[in-house]
Amino acid sequence: MAFRARHLLGIEHLAPEEILTVLDLADRYVDLNRRTVKRTDALEGMTQINMFFENSTRTQSSFELAGKRLGADVMNMAMQNSSVKKGETLIDTALTLNAMHPDLLVVRHGASGAVDLLAQKVNCAVVNAGDGKHEHPTQALLDALTIRRAKGRLHGLTVAICGDVSHSRVARSNMLLLGKMENHVRLIGPPTLMPPGFGEFGVDIYEDMRAGLKGADVVMMLRLQKERMDGGFIPSEREYFHRYGLDAEKLGFAAPDAIVMHPGPMNRGVEIDGTIADDITRSVIQEQVEMGVAVRMAVMDLLAQNLRAERGRAATENLARGTFV
Amino acid sequence: MAFRARHLLGIEHLAPEEILTVLDLADRYVDLNRRTVKRTDALEGMTQINMFFENSTRTQSSFELAGKRLGADVMNMAMQNSSVKKGETLIDTALTLNAMHPDLLVVRHGASGAVDLLAQKVNCAVVNAGDGKHEHPTQALLDALTIRRAKGRLHGLTVAICGDVSHSRVARSNMLLLGKMENHVRLIGPPTLMPPGFGEFGVDIYEDMRAGLKGADVVMMLRLQKERMDGGFIPSEREYFHRYGLDAEKLGFAAPDAIVMHPGPMNRGVEIDGTIADDITRSVIQEQVEMGVAVRMAVMDLLAQNLRAERGRAATENLARGTFV
Amino acid sequence: MAFRARHLLGIEHLAPEEILTVLDLADRYVDLNRRTVKRTDALEGMTQINMFFENSTRTQSSFELAGKRLGADVMNMAMQNSSVKKGETLIDTALTLNAMHPDLLVVRHGASGAVDLLAQKVNCAVVNAGDGKHEHPTQALLDALTIRRAKGRLHGLTVAICGDVSHSRVARSNMLLLGKMENHVRLIGPPTLMPPGFGEFGVDIYEDMRAGLKGADVVMMLRLQKERMDGGFIPSEREYFHRYGLDAEKLGFAAPDAIVMHPGPMNRGVEIDGTIADDITRSVIQEQVEMGVAVRMAVMDLLAQNLRAERGRAATENLARGTFV
Repeated sequence: MAFRARHLLGIEHLAPEEILTVLDLADRYVDLNRRTVKRTDALEGMTQINMFFENSTRTQSSFELAGKRLGADVMNMAMQNSSVKKGETLIDTALTLNAMHPDLLVVRHGASGAVDLLAQKVNCAVVNAGDGKHEHPTQALLDALTIRRAKGRLHGLTVAICGDVSHSRVARSNMLLLGKMENHVRLIGPPTLMPPGFGEFGVDIYEDMRAGLKGADVVMMLRLQKERMDGGFIPSEREYFHRYGLDAEKLGFAAPDAIVMHPGPMNRGVEIDGTIADDITRSVIQEQVEMGVAVRMAVMDLLAQNLRAERGRAATENLARGTFV
Repeated sequence: MAFRARHLLGIEHLAPEEILTVLDLADRYVDLNRRTVKRTDALEGMTQINMFFENSTRTQSSFELAGKRLGADVMNMAMQNSSVKKGETLIDTALTLNAMHPDLLVVRHGASGAVDLLAQKVNCAVVNAGDGKHEHPTQALLDALTIRRAKGRLHGLTVAICGDVSHSRVARSNMLLLGKMENHVRLIGPPTLMPPGFGEFGVDIYEDMRAGLKGADVVMMLRLQKERMDGGFIPSEREYFHRYGLDAEKLGFAAPDAIVMHPGPMNRGVEIDGTIADDITRSVIQEQVEMGVAVRMAVMDLLAQNLRAERGRAATENLARGTFV
Repeated sequence: MAFRARHLLGIEHLAPEEILTVLDLADRYVDLNRRTVKRTDALEGMTQINMFFENSTRTQSSFELAGKRLGADVMNMAMQNSSVKKGETLIDTALTLNAMHPDLLVVRHGASGAVDLLAQKVNCAVVNAGDGKHEHPTQALLDALTIRRAKGRLHGLTVAICGDVSHSRVARSNMLLLGKMENHVRLIGPPTLMPPGFGEFGVDIYEDMRAGLKGADVVMMLRLQKERMDGGFIPSEREYFHRYGLDAEKLGFAAPDAIVMHPGPMNRGVEIDGTIADDITRSVIQEQVEMGVAVRMAVMDLLAQNLRAERGRAATENLARGTFV
């Protein structure tokens, strides 16, 4: 089955077959990205605009490289310095951008749902690069690709997601994707960082890390947002590391061939011991970054194909009607 | 008549025929920009540097897209973080840039006349993207193109420019252009925001908005610079909207087919009612943004042609003299 | 002899023949940069990432233009806004970047040795664009090219480097390069700005500027870091100019055909009189900027050639072993 979506707003809207279409294409782009196959021109003549209302050098760079390697013209808009500051509404910003005729719009925004709203107002394809506590779909897709390449499959695995789950769009998109692909997801964290109502996702919740890790095939650590500590959610970094930091002892409870993941940037010594992060027999953290570029290439390629098909149909219909706008 | 200018520093220096040359070419670039004609390579191999001493995500993006769609290498210099902070003079910055051999230099600066000064020191073509309260010529050109496409002509129209006229380079460049093309320009605004001496432009000045709008073909609203309110020019946003905000009642005084314009970003509910801004039977605000990219493509294409011709002549002369530098 | 280096981390590691290889290629790139020869595609299909942990619009722009003119995809990472702020270590940043498979990494960092450290962790070629008080090798190379073009040779010259020597990586890299090429280097400055132990470089040290300039072929002024004045190193700008500012009177002590250099941005009236800076019969300051782009093109071209050769060897070895990763 083809990838039918017009936008990539969240994992929520994707069928399992669409997820596999992205991952299969991304697998081929890994080689392109490693320069072992030749450059493509999938986005030749297309304009990609990166619009980050929240700073993220890492994610923005990954999207920028992905676009450039597909031949797109990429433009970064630093929205922190923009008209938004001058009081322009998000809708007006969207309409303004739309009038410049981009083909792909990559958006990160601090408010959950802001990217969906924006997508309703524009003619181009929109990729959600993270919206509030809602979704971060390309992160879940790159994690899925990393898991599939390491474990040889993407179903029937036990995946433990550990840390500040309640504020994490990474956790949310991963839960959705892993659930759709029929994996067993466990959430591990202190009750203060565990949202109510996550039972609906069909996940198991653990306060004790050792119990949660027991027999897990994949250990996915989350970044501790240090600003949570000011809010009284967490007593101290030291105490947090003691209870929820991944070290060799705790990792010993997972399956012997369990892999260790982290979306970055890491707080070494807070949520993860540096030795574990650097142990290339267990940690796939660098591979996650690499898969990030490949997955974003695949997503934008697929969206661009759909956009071209849609434009082709519109042109044919106009021709049939004898009009041409 | 061809477009003869070496730089685009202001509308002031353009002949009516040069204005029409830009608009005619821009009309063709609208189609290119909509992807209904193929990409050109008018700026292939050329380097465009955007040097914005004042932030403007909107205008900078428009120039960046225009350059990229013409095939230029575009480089943005964030001058807020630059050597200027380290005490370098504007002239030294200009000479430094010039030594890097750009072809096109797009400059926005907070001081009136700064762009002219800079243009005298460099070998490349310079485009004024707004200098102090002086000029913003590409804005006036994109407004003219929008008007001509909506009204079918660019002469004999009554154009009402309304709001903070005294601080507005947009108003100033528009007055100059519309005057050259033989339109009737009216300025509407509170006396505190109306500069003395604008009579010399052959415009009519109105304090009462309804009187000023009467029978107007084009209603051009200006952005209210909120910092003016701190200075005591304006009592309050609410009071300002009551007297000078464009709403359905006031717009009723204009011609029945009058169009509504705004350079953006808008303060909805301050200088314009959101309903009017969104009424696509009256408002051409989104089209202004679209014409912005097309006009900037046209301007840079024409300047590049002149630059190439000038370099060709210089090379021929050197050849004739037997020298080659 | 070819240029054998995998990275350009400092002048320290270069043999005199390697320096000449860079300068000879840069000489050819001067013409390319002036558009008198056609564009090359030396970096076609390659990705250059500029990673500036310290702001430098001037140096970053020079590297960006150099890369674009060689056909590279260039990406700027604003590291001031990046994960570094979120507590990520330099090594993790390096590993993350490396996983994105850049070909060339241009790095400026405030800590001496940081660029060397980073280079050990990545597979791509690294160019040091300035690290702490350590080295700024492309500045020394562009200075050398400027000197060679002005004086016709790069050996047996007396070069006076004047000003805040102790904090200057520019001075350090120049001392190393000029020493390797068998020139006589003199350092001039107040004892508070003169580091101990520079005698080991085989240079002569002067506190009196007139004595130091006597008969010099090249006068290289350094930028006065104004923050030094807060630290009590220098009494006042006026006093500094009186004793160490280059003016016509002091320049009279140098050789009649001495050239004047400055790495920019200049403090006119502090370390150099504006009249001297603008005197194109003596000052080569603009030419230094122009040579900067050419030298960076040459360096990145040579490093890319070595990278391609290395990758070719690796591919051949893998083929011989029957493996392909």
